[in-house]
Formats: sequence, structure tokens, C-alpha cells
Amino acid sequence: METRSGWGEPGQVGKETDGTGHQMSYDAIIEQLGIVIPASPTPVANYVPVVRVGDLLFLSGVLPSRDGQLIMTGKLGVDLSLDQGIDAAKAAALNALAIVKSEVGSLDRVKRIVKMVGHIASAPGFTDQPQVLNGASDLFVQIFGEAGRHARVAVGAAELPRRAPVEIELIVQVA
Amino acid sequence: METRSGWGEPGQVGKETDGTGHQMSYDAIIEQLGIVIPASPTPVANYVPVVRVGDLLFLSGVLPSRDGQLIMTGKLGVDLSLDQGIDAAKAAALNALAIVKSEVGSLDRVKRIVKMVGHIASAPGFTDQPQVLNGASDLFVQIFGEAGRHARVAVGAAELPRRAPVEIELIVQVA
Amino acid sequence: METRSGWGEPGQVGKETDGTGHQMSYDAIIEQLGIVIPASPTPVANYVPVVRVGDLLFLSGVLPSRDGQLIMTGKLGVDLSLDQGIDAAKAAALNALAIVKSEVGSLDRVKRIVKMVGHIASAPGFTDQPQVLNGASDLFVQIFGEAGRHARVAVGAAELPRRAPVEIELIVQVA
Repeated sequence: METRSGWGEPGQVGKETDGTGHQMSYDAIIEQLGIVIPASPTPVANYVPVVRVGDLLFLSGVLPSRDGQLIMTGKLGVDLSLDQGIDAAKAAALNALAIVKSEVGSLDRVKRIVKMVGHIASAPGFTDQPQVLNGASDLFVQIFGEAGRHARVAVGAAELPRRAPVEIELIVQVA
Repeated sequence: METRSGWGEPGQVGKETDGTGHQMSYDAIIEQLGIVIPASPTPVANYVPVVRVGDLLFLSGVLPSRDGQLIMTGKLGVDLSLDQGIDAAKAAALNALAIVKSEVGSLDRVKRIVKMVGHIASAPGFTDQPQVLNGASDLFVQIFGEAGRHARVAVGAAELPRRAPVEIELIVQVA
Repeated sequence: METRSGWGEPGQVGKETDGTGHQMSYDAIIEQLGIVIPASPTPVANYVPVVRVGDLLFLSGVLPSRDGQLIMTGKLGVDLSLDQGIDAAKAAALNALAIVKSEVGSLDRVKRIVKMVGHIASAPGFTDQPQVLNGASDLFVQIFGEAGRHARVAVGAAELPRRAPVEIELIVQVA
């Protein structure tokens, strides 16, 4: 049903031992994978990037932006290819991790990626929302292993803010 | 505002006493109603059907599928009738219950259906999303009675994965 | 990125002291602002306005209605102006607060507006969903101050129930 995203073998990394038998931290895995967590996006209206209730973080919707600019715009199925959509989902997921890191200090405090809802701006007839969203799912599993396996909802949106192709909302459990 | 779905009298069953005065289990009610909980759907990407946090189950989006195949495809308002949409919502709801049962062993452990978001693939001008979603809501109340009454959000999606007409996301409290 | 909605200076009120140095209650702030919390909307199908789990309230989707009638219908980008959308979002937010008040007795028991997902009925090309949603966000911050700052998701829906322009789903933490 869903294609692979081409980012290595998800699920085989998370908190592995390194060559010396020590368990690696998520921060170390991220560094090893060459992944750069960007600066956390800043809301410009009366809301916040994340609200914590108990051990749950409820994140605001994140777009595939860097430094406040969308890295691409348009709809899947007409403006953008599936591969571009996957890249957009990954970029949005990195922004979500930036928010988590900014809130709790280190991604080592992630206990579980609980749930992701992915809204994919979809032209009529585009129904590969799950494949697009793999760009985010695979990243989470690549970093967090089993703790990165989440409940997931993929839906096709009519339009998204600022012509973003993807918007991700996330619930994360932290320690 | 919303039509009845024609599945008996919702809200009058859940954990009733049987003829002998004993309180019936949800599993017994399901059997008595002739409802068959299907096999739990299996994700084919880097996510899981459900994540549990404390006593809450966060489910992945479920489609009206059986054995991996959608029982119908298309949009409400052009391809499918309201009655078909109601059937699709019921089929998706059964998949959600299959996931819950698979996670906690028995539906008798359901304490409350907390919240359902129903995404209805909607052609331009179709605005009866709530009536479609009654196919799921009525099933929950038929089985769980008051414990099946949930918070609900009905929205019209531009497109859904694999041309599904309905996708349901659910939060369930378990004992 | 987002325009101001013109409802004063959000974030400067919530639980301020009044002229005598006493901290004002949210109910008093609402009265002072001249905001009227309407009657709580009543679902007409097998669901409920709100489900409480622990200290969290999960609300059903609310529309910009009064006394069961929508105050406006249509899509942003073709039928309604941005200012009308902002008004619709505010009206929906007031309904959400009506539900909270009905559930816990007084808005003084609000501990935090946790998360809002705003679905905006969007004609092709309309991408100002965040600006529309400010109508709700600004209201929450006007009343609750910092406790009103929430995680937020703004998405463009293809269609909404009864041709509503806005639907809001809310999670609220109460004391």
C-alpha cells in the first residue's frame, strides 16, 4: 500500500548500542545520522508552539518551513511530486522535533511519539496521503526506534495555510 | 438536524441486564446483536494501529476496509449515497473496535469512547457529514450505551487515502 | 503572517487585578469585556458536547451557531470575507466556552486552553486559515490571558456540516 521513502532502514536504529556496547542517546543517533534539528518555529499570533499537560506535549500544527519561509508550496497531485511531498513531510517533522527539544531541553526525554495527524494539501484525485506522510513517520522511527512508532491519521486537505503542502499535528509523551 | 441510521434504538442496550437480571458484558451484547468484530487492520508503514498512554488509547485513522480491501470507494455527494456513507462509517467503526479489542483483549475493558473525529470525503456541496458519521456513533452507543456517547467532530475532506469515503480517528478510555 | 482581529490587546487582561488590587476571576473579566456566553449547543445525535477524562475536557466540534441556527454559511475565499470568518471563529469559540461552562459550572475552573484545531471551509486558493482562526485565539487570550494561549492547528476543509464556514475542536484542562 505504501512506498518506501528511501531514508535507510527505519526501525533499526533507535537507542541501539554503539560499537562499544553502550546504548546511544537519541541526540547521539541524530548526530550520527547527520540530521540537523532546526530552530523552533515561532507563532506570530495568540498561540504557542506546544502545551504540556502531565507527560503529554500537544504541539501546534507545523509546516515545512525553515527560518519562517516555506521550503515549497502547492498541492500534491498537481504542483508537487510524491518525492517532494515526502521531503515536505520530513521538513515539517523536523520542525515538530525542534519544538519538542525547545520545550524539554533534549530529545532524549522523548518517551513515545504518540500520535500524528498529517494534513496533505491534495488536488482532486490525489489519494497517496499515507505515502507522503511516511516522510515524517520514517524519520521518527529512524531516530526513536520503537518509541517512534505512532498512531497515525492521513487526510487530504482542501487548502493549507500559506499554500503549504503538508501540515503535521503531533502528540508526544515525554519523561 | 441528523437522520436516524436505522440500526435499532441506540442508547437503550449498553450493559443492560439480560432476562435473568444479570448485567451483560459488552462482548455478550455484541454477540446478541449479531455484530462481528473483524480482524484488526495492520499498518504497512512505520506506524502502529494504536498507542496507549495511561488509560487512553490513541488509534490510527481507520478506513471502511475488510481484509485489507476497502468495501467501497468514492466521495459522498457524487459517487455514494448517504446510506452507503453510513455503512462505510459503521465499517470503519468496527475496524476501530477491532483495534481496541486487539490491544486490550476484550471490549469489556472499554470505559468510555472519548472522542471521534470523522473525515468524510466530500464532493462540492455535500454537507451531511454528521449524518454519515451517525453510522459510527450509533454503533458505539448500541454496544456501549452511555459509555459509548463520545465527543465528536465531523469534517469534509478533499480526499482520503485510497479513495476511501470515510476515515475515523478515535480516542478510547480503557480500564 | 497573521493580521490582528481588532478585539483590543489580547494577552493583557486575563486574571489581572482590578482597580482595588484584587485578582479578577475569568467570569468577572468576561462580564467586564461585555462578552456573553451563549446557551450550550445540544447535539441531536448519539454524541455529547464534551467528554471529561481526568482534568481534560475533549469537546465536540462547535460551529458558529446561536440557538441552533448558524449565524452565517458559506466558504472563505468566495462567499465570506476574512472579517466575517473571524467573526465566525469567535462565535464558534463562544459556543466552546458555553460547553466548558455547562460542564464544570464556571469558567474560573479553566486551567489551560490546551489545543484548538480549526477547520475552515475554504474555496480553492484561500490560504488565510490562521487569520480566520485568530477570531477564536484572540478571544481565549483576552479572557484567560496566558492560560488562554493554546497549541493550534489551522486547516482548510473541503466542506463542513450545514455549510458552516468554521468548525472548532478544543481540548481544555480544568481544575
